[in-house]
Amino acid sequence: MKRIAIDMDDVLADASGRFVEYYVERMGKQITKEILRGPNWAEAVDLHADEVRSWVYEPGFFRGMQVLPDAQEVVRRLQEHYEVFIVSAAIEFPNSLKEKVEWMAEYFPFVNWRYIVLCGHKYMIQAEYLIDDHEKNLRTFPGTSLLFSAPHNLDLTGYQRVDNWLDVAELLLPESVVESKRLTPSDQ
Amino acid sequence: MKRIAIDMDDVLADASGRFVEYYVERMGKQITKEILRGPNWAEAVDLHADEVRSWVYEPGFFRGMQVLPDAQEVVRRLQEHYEVFIVSAAIEFPNSLKEKVEWMAEYFPFVNWRYIVLCGHKYMIQAEYLIDDHEKNLRTFPGTSLLFSAPHNLDLTGYQRVDNWLDVAELLLPESVVESKRLTPSDQ
Repeated sequence: MKRIAIDMDDVLADASGRFVEYYVERMGKQITKEILRGPNWAEAVDLHADEVRSWVYEPGFFRGMQVLPDAQEVVRRLQEHYEVFIVSAAIEFPNSLKEKVEWMAEYFPFVNWRYIVLCGHKYMIQAEYLIDDHEKNLRTFPGTSLLFSAPHNLDLTGYQRVDNWLDVAELLLPESVVESKRLTPSDQ
Repeated sequence: MKRIAIDMDDVLADASGRFVEYYVERMGKQITKEILRGPNWAEAVDLHADEVRSWVYEPGFFRGMQVLPDAQEVVRRLQEHYEVFIVSAAIEFPNSLKEKVEWMAEYFPFVNWRYIVLCGHKYMIQAEYLIDDHEKNLRTFPGTSLLFSAPHNLDLTGYQRVDNWLDVAELLLPESVVESKRLTPSDQ
């Protein structure tokens, strides 16, 4: 059985949406995710980069993320055809570790804890595929890298891109599964 | 550069000693590590297995472990010859995650966070060597497994055994390093 490594932030979990949510709550001004496209988005919305960074260290930042559309259903189906590991470069944020495990237990209870990896580098994970939004992980990965679209990587080229979880399903699930029934009720 | 994956509990950190410490503190009776050799050691010292398990979930259990003799010096030297990853099956204990990262920062500040992996299974880590005390990890590891002696594995056979960190040094460091100077002042 082939193995897939799947990132969490901006792949399973809406990290960009969480930044927007914090911004709107704290700054009392509306912005949309598109602003996160630029490398200096914090400046563009009158924020100090340190301030943004401090949000990431706040309890609840990771725990409160929304799950991205179709992620649950597609991961569940991928498990039928692949060995699925969830691989998050979370060690940098020690407060996030427990939150990430709890988040997985809430939204992906069908992923056993033995298949969750919290790490730094990802290149030492032996897998056929890595689905990730960060070039630093995709570039060093020895298997096939799939770039999951996120506001911050929309200008990145040179990787096979998947825009959402239905794209992942089309690419990695047998055609019959994708064709015969839509993945989520909302797509019916 | 070859890669080594190194476990934490009972390899870098004195987990068995921590159990003894908790026992002595809470039960007011002396025991030694040797009692942990048996599979039913808790019963042997009039403890319910659930009680022992509850200690592991207590804040501070992991954070307060002693570092095992020579571990720091040998790991530092191994880094000169290998790419060293610290790989702990910690996801089962969400409260331990932050403590383990903090413990590493205190006792192994020369191990960058990017080289710490908190996981369940370990067989998907691509490395030439795994140093671990648990057969379940050694058995499934595709590289060379080194069994690090701990009270609970003293009767286990079929693996190359290292009794302590000086054994690891002899096995994995160039002879000149081991021969020319002893690893720690206490060995001089």
